[in-house]
Amino acid sequence: MKKFLDENFLLETTEAERLYHGFASDMPLIDYHNHLSPHDIANDRKFTNISEIWLEGDHYKWRAMRANGVAELYCTGNASAWEKFEQWAYTVPYTMCNPLYHWTHLELQRYFGIHQILSPETAKDVFDACNEKLLQEDCSVKHLLRNMKVEYMGTTDDPLDDLAAHKKIKESGFEIKVSPSFRPDKAINIEHAATFNSYVNKLALASGEPINDFDSYVKALRQRHDHFSANGCTVSDNGMEQMFDVEYTPAELKNIFSSVRLGDNPTAQEIRKFTIAMLVTLGEWAYEKNWVQQFHMGPIRNNNERMFALLGADTGWDSMGSSINIKAVGKFLSRLDKNNTLSKTILYSINPVDNDALATMVGNFNDGTLAGKIQLGSAWWFNDQKDGMIQQLKSVSNMGLLSRFVGMLTDSRSFLSFPRHEYFRRILCNMLGGQMANGELPNDEAWIGQMVQNICYYNAKKYFNL
Amino acid sequence: MKKFLDENFLLETTEAERLYHGFASDMPLIDYHNHLSPHDIANDRKFTNISEIWLEGDHYKWRAMRANGVAELYCTGNASAWEKFEQWAYTVPYTMCNPLYHWTHLELQRYFGIHQILSPETAKDVFDACNEKLLQEDCSVKHLLRNMKVEYMGTTDDPLDDLAAHKKIKESGFEIKVSPSFRPDKAINIEHAATFNSYVNKLALASGEPINDFDSYVKALRQRHDHFSANGCTVSDNGMEQMFDVEYTPAELKNIFSSVRLGDNPTAQEIRKFTIAMLVTLGEWAYEKNWVQQFHMGPIRNNNERMFALLGADTGWDSMGSSINIKAVGKFLSRLDKNNTLSKTILYSINPVDNDALATMVGNFNDGTLAGKIQLGSAWWFNDQKDGMIQQLKSVSNMGLLSRFVGMLTDSRSFLSFPRHEYFRRILCNMLGGQMANGELPNDEAWIGQMVQNICYYNAKKYFNL
Amino acid sequence: MKKFLDENFLLETTEAERLYHGFASDMPLIDYHNHLSPHDIANDRKFTNISEIWLEGDHYKWRAMRANGVAELYCTGNASAWEKFEQWAYTVPYTMCNPLYHWTHLELQRYFGIHQILSPETAKDVFDACNEKLLQEDCSVKHLLRNMKVEYMGTTDDPLDDLAAHKKIKESGFEIKVSPSFRPDKAINIEHAATFNSYVNKLALASGEPINDFDSYVKALRQRHDHFSANGCTVSDNGMEQMFDVEYTPAELKNIFSSVRLGDNPTAQEIRKFTIAMLVTLGEWAYEKNWVQQFHMGPIRNNNERMFALLGADTGWDSMGSSINIKAVGKFLSRLDKNNTLSKTILYSINPVDNDALATMVGNFNDGTLAGKIQLGSAWWFNDQKDGMIQQLKSVSNMGLLSRFVGMLTDSRSFLSFPRHEYFRRILCNMLGGQMANGELPNDEAWIGQMVQNICYYNAKKYFNL
Repeated sequence: MKKFLDENFLLETTEAERLYHGFASDMPLIDYHNHLSPHDIANDRKFTNISEIWLEGDHYKWRAMRANGVAELYCTGNASAWEKFEQWAYTVPYTMCNPLYHWTHLELQRYFGIHQILSPETAKDVFDACNEKLLQEDCSVKHLLRNMKVEYMGTTDDPLDDLAAHKKIKESGFEIKVSPSFRPDKAINIEHAATFNSYVNKLALASGEPINDFDSYVKALRQRHDHFSANGCTVSDNGMEQMFDVEYTPAELKNIFSSVRLGDNPTAQEIRKFTIAMLVTLGEWAYEKNWVQQFHMGPIRNNNERMFALLGADTGWDSMGSSINIKAVGKFLSRLDKNNTLSKTILYSINPVDNDALATMVGNFNDGTLAGKIQLGSAWWFNDQKDGMIQQLKSVSNMGLLSRFVGMLTDSRSFLSFPRHEYFRRILCNMLGGQMANGELPNDEAWIGQMVQNICYYNAKKYFNL
Repeated sequence: MKKFLDENFLLETTEAERLYHGFASDMPLIDYHNHLSPHDIANDRKFTNISEIWLEGDHYKWRAMRANGVAELYCTGNASAWEKFEQWAYTVPYTMCNPLYHWTHLELQRYFGIHQILSPETAKDVFDACNEKLLQEDCSVKHLLRNMKVEYMGTTDDPLDDLAAHKKIKESGFEIKVSPSFRPDKAINIEHAATFNSYVNKLALASGEPINDFDSYVKALRQRHDHFSANGCTVSDNGMEQMFDVEYTPAELKNIFSSVRLGDNPTAQEIRKFTIAMLVTLGEWAYEKNWVQQFHMGPIRNNNERMFALLGADTGWDSMGSSINIKAVGKFLSRLDKNNTLSKTILYSINPVDNDALATMVGNFNDGTLAGKIQLGSAWWFNDQKDGMIQQLKSVSNMGLLSRFVGMLTDSRSFLSFPRHEYFRRILCNMLGGQMANGELPNDEAWIGQMVQNICYYNAKKYFNL
Repeated sequence: MKKFLDENFLLETTEAERLYHGFASDMPLIDYHNHLSPHDIANDRKFTNISEIWLEGDHYKWRAMRANGVAELYCTGNASAWEKFEQWAYTVPYTMCNPLYHWTHLELQRYFGIHQILSPETAKDVFDACNEKLLQEDCSVKHLLRNMKVEYMGTTDDPLDDLAAHKKIKESGFEIKVSPSFRPDKAINIEHAATFNSYVNKLALASGEPINDFDSYVKALRQRHDHFSANGCTVSDNGMEQMFDVEYTPAELKNIFSSVRLGDNPTAQEIRKFTIAMLVTLGEWAYEKNWVQQFHMGPIRNNNERMFALLGADTGWDSMGSSINIKAVGKFLSRLDKNNTLSKTILYSINPVDNDALATMVGNFNDGTLAGKIQLGSAWWFNDQKDGMIQQLKSVSNMGLLSRFVGMLTDSRSFLSFPRHEYFRRILCNMLGGQMANGELPNDEAWIGQMVQNICYYNAKKYFNL
């Protein structure tokens, strides 16, 4: 019996061990998409206890605790740090087979040097040991990033953001590059007129552009795009529940915008037209500036209306939706491509049933101008676990070129989540090593080792022009 | 080479063997959903031959025989018991790799002590040996249930049922608890006005409530709900091809009902409104009575119109449909949840492509009030096989808490199908044991053994208040 | 470590090795569906270099090269044979984990006796060795087919085809049977009136039937159907992006046809009605003649509009679509079945997410009249790789009878693609051998060996009346 989570965790052949330890484990991290707070980095925040850094804001853990019968008081409520930790420790043994079980113990090992299994029995010891460690100098946010060999990270930012935190990080001479990503979801979501109008008013202020009509709205948004660019942004990101195959005219867009500005909620078809039109415009801007554009497709958000009303977004009430409209994805990409305005693009699917189809659609827009120009993104959110990663790697492999894959990102809100790169690397090496061992790949460790390093590091470095 | 179907069948590591033999194999069975006949139990039916108990009513076997070129005469026709058995024995070797091959030999071993492989060569011997065994006292229905350590089973019953058989079972002092489940599919299916009206007329009689309008219809249905409750029912079940995201008003429901009662077939949109409205009402009643509600989603029934016309429903002409509308599932659950009327709920998917999405949707309504309150149900129907079970277990694990899963049920129409619990338990233990062996789980046999027992028995016992 | 692609490639147990080498490897090939050129066979074409036979027309390789950043000049452009080969050799190491990597080296081994790994370092040697080999007598198209033990192959032909090449092949006394398949996609696709009308005009000429209205159009198409039949055709094939559940009347069909003939593009609903009506008519003809009908469902074609405009169809811009409408598939089959006009039918799914549902739908129309009458087709196109084949084999196994499966076909445009049968056979034997080794199948090599031979050869031979 192999020891739990030892140095050869997830590595089932000697070939896999050699690939991981020889090529993957020491590579720096390029975490090109996450949701970490640039303010925490700018201020080099220190956390006072493990609950603060580990449980606040982590909807993965909250969902597990709720499914385990733990009351909301201990998730998002006012319970004490110790009480919350105690409930989490109670829940951990019940998360066996869920990725949280591996993440939890990887994080305890890598950040805190703790090799105990977290459970009610060990909870107090672990709590105290973690808190003691967090008091030390090398546990500030900047140190946490340094210790994990992060070389670059891309945050996710609203167009309204002044990016002051990013400027402060840069000015501090922090050796890790922290760049913003332009995520204009709220800026183009017209579904609720009141919410949109409130946003548009703020956009006018932030941009210094009075917004009277569709054209000035676009101009204001463009000002923010330029502002992001001026502050080192080279990546955009868009989240959407579905893609649409619709036609629209400039006149229609103007009318939709005006009508929504007058407070009328748009029809479903108007939402579709406006959304696709704005995604096309944003895609053209991305092309102009040679940005990488990302599309995170498919989640249904805030499904539990009662709890959403109580706690707001991003508190653990989201889920996978049914399949994405693959044809509409193709139409969208082609709309940009046929005008030669399709920039580097990464498509992420929330529902793994879409992996294969998206991976083949990606292939239709790889036109030989750049290796791996259009990519199926890393296993995302609910898929960020062993089976999900394997499925995504197989889709990329079978339908395209694994060797050109830009690899893993955390997409995380937690400064303790970087071991997920290690998790991914182990799974990648295990897959390739396994195929070497059984004769499905040749015994060419030099090439395959290089392939591993490319997927773990160099492909992203090149793709994001780092 | 491992012997076929020996004591370590499906167990690939010593850890898996220890978990299965040490923790799982002796646990009693809670078969909380099946389609067994309460009349057969009440009458302690004895079967006169193996064809009667094994081949009558088993559409799985019929489908295999038909696909193997066996004429209908030997499936649902008037061929003799031996002729039918002979054709089944001819077919069995052709079912290799289909779950029927394993089920067949598990059932021969467990019920009849026969370790031969069924084939044309062994057909006569097996036929005779089984028939001889069936003559013995300990092969009545009640003994079959006892011998398999069944502790509880839930039948599936129409609201019109007077539940006399259930009463008789109870009054007989039978030590195995046999409870009805309320399955009102026919009571709320307005698609064909004539069929619905015929049902409604019977409902009026059964309930003693004259049905003049929508309100009295609901009242009559409620009378049956109360009647079931009074007879020990604590579980409801609903089957549907699709879920819908629709709004409706009381006035609309009244009008739809009246119009259908006048003989007009409803529109597709009217069907959707009426269906969801009634499911919400039934959900509220389930909550009031603290029932567990089940939803079996996705099958397309009676696809072969020619054979359906000849043989009727449930004779082997059903199949998986395309994906369920996951968003509509969420809307439905939220409709109940936001009024605090969401009872314990199990969602079953006929198409395994929906497993992951449903498992994430389940998570949105686990609000910490009860561990495992909302569940993704066991691999169902076509998925009731090794790959299907593994897929379902992985979805539950990756998207939620496997440790809180209420486990297996047979959903069967055959008194010989209980070894499917054993099949499930072996697969579960193999998965967990495999992860212990390769270091993905810690070497904590006490905890993981308890987890196995919970999934096999205790979770269901608690969930169903047994 | 196992040697790459040795004689036990993909065979992981001794049982698998015994099945493959003892039963599968020597069986002749029945390639019942491909896109090879009957003209090349009739003319016993010889290829002057490896680029001509390997890279011309192979959109799989082009897609890989484009994804690897290779310019179109080296894919479909005017680069020299060596330049194209050089770029392909550059790309091959980047295709590790994609099926192209295995296909490439299998083809080099089987056709050319080359056991080197193709890469930039070996490119010149391999290029020269292949070209030298191609000069030899035994590398003409007929010899290539003979050398691979092809016994029968079915090409894919337009109804307009005069089948002169097929006649010539037959008259030459070529011992390998080469039959046409009737593929009327263009004949029934009314989407673009101009394109359709152009086709209809040619159809009138080819059939000698003046086409004035819907009835004479059907008559002309029937003439081609009869012509194909007279020339040995016993198989039809239809490609479609989606299936539809629609009703239609004869009057509607006449009107739609007339309107399109007048140059009006039809509505989406008119397209659906016309398509299903014609598929039903074609299905009835197939039944009359006891043909096998095939349906290739789901691809979205020509997604990259810019490249399609430059290069035309079948140049590598196609992808999987979202799921097929499974219910509509059932309605279509039932429409034929209820009139007793459902012929032998094979359904192929481009998106593997539909495998399970289609496999269950197939089962609804296996009515016992013929073993394996309705089939889920082999893993197709993007799924023609190890994982895809395993998924398809598992769907067939779990939902039906693997033992009745008619097995593999290449669907290929290349005379070098026949080792894909070997690839399939190894995967099949590995699956069955693995189950023997671990006790999931009995140690009955005689029966399972026969099952292997049936799937590899005899089932197809019988199904296609060879």
